[in-house]
Amino acid sequence: MRHSILNLEESKIREVANAGMGRSDVLAFWFGESDEVTPDFIRQAAIESLQQGETFYSHNLGLPELREAVSRYMSDLHGPIAADRIAVTSGGVSALMLAMQMLVDAGDRVVAVTPVWPNLTAQPVILGAELHCVALQPQANGAWALDMPQLLAAITLDTKLLILNAPNNPTGWTLTRVEQQTILDHCRSTGTWVLADEVYERLYYEPSPNGCAPSFLDVAEPDDRLVVVHSFSKSFLMTGWRLGWLVMPASATPHMGKLIEFNTSCASVFVQRAGIQALQRTDEITPRVVAHLKQCRDTLVPLLQAVPGIQVAPAKGGMYAFFKLEGHSDSLLTAKRLVAEAGLGLAPGNAFAPQAQGWLRWCFASQNLQRLEHGVERLKKWAII
Amino acid sequence: MRHSILNLEESKIREVANAGMGRSDVLAFWFGESDEVTPDFIRQAAIESLQQGETFYSHNLGLPELREAVSRYMSDLHGPIAADRIAVTSGGVSALMLAMQMLVDAGDRVVAVTPVWPNLTAQPVILGAELHCVALQPQANGAWALDMPQLLAAITLDTKLLILNAPNNPTGWTLTRVEQQTILDHCRSTGTWVLADEVYERLYYEPSPNGCAPSFLDVAEPDDRLVVVHSFSKSFLMTGWRLGWLVMPASATPHMGKLIEFNTSCASVFVQRAGIQALQRTDEITPRVVAHLKQCRDTLVPLLQAVPGIQVAPAKGGMYAFFKLEGHSDSLLTAKRLVAEAGLGLAPGNAFAPQAQGWLRWCFASQNLQRLEHGVERLKKWAII
Repeated sequence: MRHSILNLEESKIREVANAGMGRSDVLAFWFGESDEVTPDFIRQAAIESLQQGETFYSHNLGLPELREAVSRYMSDLHGPIAADRIAVTSGGVSALMLAMQMLVDAGDRVVAVTPVWPNLTAQPVILGAELHCVALQPQANGAWALDMPQLLAAITLDTKLLILNAPNNPTGWTLTRVEQQTILDHCRSTGTWVLADEVYERLYYEPSPNGCAPSFLDVAEPDDRLVVVHSFSKSFLMTGWRLGWLVMPASATPHMGKLIEFNTSCASVFVQRAGIQALQRTDEITPRVVAHLKQCRDTLVPLLQAVPGIQVAPAKGGMYAFFKLEGHSDSLLTAKRLVAEAGLGLAPGNAFAPQAQGWLRWCFASQNLQRLEHGVERLKKWAII
Repeated sequence: MRHSILNLEESKIREVANAGMGRSDVLAFWFGESDEVTPDFIRQAAIESLQQGETFYSHNLGLPELREAVSRYMSDLHGPIAADRIAVTSGGVSALMLAMQMLVDAGDRVVAVTPVWPNLTAQPVILGAELHCVALQPQANGAWALDMPQLLAAITLDTKLLILNAPNNPTGWTLTRVEQQTILDHCRSTGTWVLADEVYERLYYEPSPNGCAPSFLDVAEPDDRLVVVHSFSKSFLMTGWRLGWLVMPASATPHMGKLIEFNTSCASVFVQRAGIQALQRTDEITPRVVAHLKQCRDTLVPLLQAVPGIQVAPAKGGMYAFFKLEGHSDSLLTAKRLVAEAGLGLAPGNAFAPQAQGWLRWCFASQNLQRLEHGVERLKKWAII
């Protein structure tokens, strides 16, 4: 077996979750997933497709109807984005891996902004790339901030790819439009591709004209070296469906079709039918989901802020409270102890970057706000002992 | 973009199919797919799961119930294979890509036996491996045969991986148990991993004690450097579901779990529920499918053999008639002309290896045997003009 795979770290989030598996008394907030079932009408679309016998292979790039629906949805948010720039993928993580396969040779320099979902930094390692991480800096108020000169200095002429996730999992950090323009200009000058994981764009709690976070699509030209990754998981409560999409320059799309053929062939037609429904009726789902998530955030964060020794800022986007717990410097150990001793399931900060050692991630996507309150009670009791 | 991706050939099968898309008058036999819808009780299992709200993430390696069901199914065929050697994947092609990611570094020497499904040779190229192909040899009767000394000579001490697909797509060639033992012994001596794509093992038309083709699992030890890839697509009429599995040494399974996390996260729970039903009730599906496919083969092949200038042998396994058409040396051109001029959709032989230039692949998985007869009529008329 390859050494890089033997040495590849298991997700520390999974490590903690596995330690608590099968314990019904644990309040689990470790995964980035709402506890709400996918809306009925979306499930119904898949059921009808199955009943109609849509059980065959489909086009590598996705059903034309779905690509058109994605095009309309994205164009509403970011101005015209044609269907020939879109590929349907088997989930956001698959979209990310496909993009990296398209862009990164073994030995290539790849820059990633961290803390970040560990999958984003594991993928270039799997492909044999040379990964260079630029860490956000924790501020006194618990928010994390980008040191722009440090990032630009890291993106050199031989940097093939820059990986960014904003709104950010786990920190809730977001990029401003000006920052995106600055990064894009710099990457144009170095010939670096930008891979922007924008799956949380709709889960955005700041005022904005289009109801979503600033996107690289708002500042880039259609033929810029930009690939944007999206997922149905978060904005449509569809984590388990494994459906996502990519936006790229139209010239790249046929090549992406080949990569999809050679990685996953295609997404299931009945899953794509569900995706079409989700996009067409996004107004019935996403605003409600976002409003509720904001309530979750605004319930959880003040409660955490009231706990002595906790440093946390409200996330501008995403679905996580990321906080530092004083006196508990080993996040993984803390997270495991919280499961075992307090029945509270959180993700360890050092799963996302070494700089986030001592931090914990709490996914606040909870249907029942009281679950969040109970969780804080457990944390307080445990921390005081 | 990477040069290796720019230069990566599109599947020539797709190229021909795209040329005939939307033409309802084409008799299409180009894809490796039955035209029969997935059995109702399998679809029903997915529908019930969706109705019950199983729309969340699941374990990277698959539902424990599904891994147990695969274990029982595989053990029935090949002797004890424990569930801890099994990973559930998002289709057979994903299983193949995952196995290659686990085993192949950029620059590594990989040997593949061809002609073969083009995905198997594209994947090592995507990963930057150095691919060396060993071609089967066409015999006078239209069958293809392995030159064992040539294969063994190609598997050197620095060969990381041997890729084999038997029963073979497209040629219908199969391996004997003795040949598998010879290959395994040699690979043990060179430290080479064997990646055996055995998705067609149940579609086998020779007498056999266990109702399936010889498998490397029958001759290997549990800790041999062997990964076997399977799919629900062919034996259970589930192409569009994107569900497959891997069998590997138990020590490799946790590492495969990481790769699944970083490639696709997991297969959808409702799709896995369908897989459980398929395995539990395989006796209601697979024997009927195989008996019908044998009828298809035994309808098509004699008809083809009666056409002047055609060389074809009945496949021992799989679902393809692979034949040489005299006087038509450019397969891709021939396949495109057949679509345009005769309304007949076949796959060009050179999609599978340069050595199969001049050959055509006909997927005989047709519910209606008359469709096959009509196809041959079209071919005959066209070939005589």
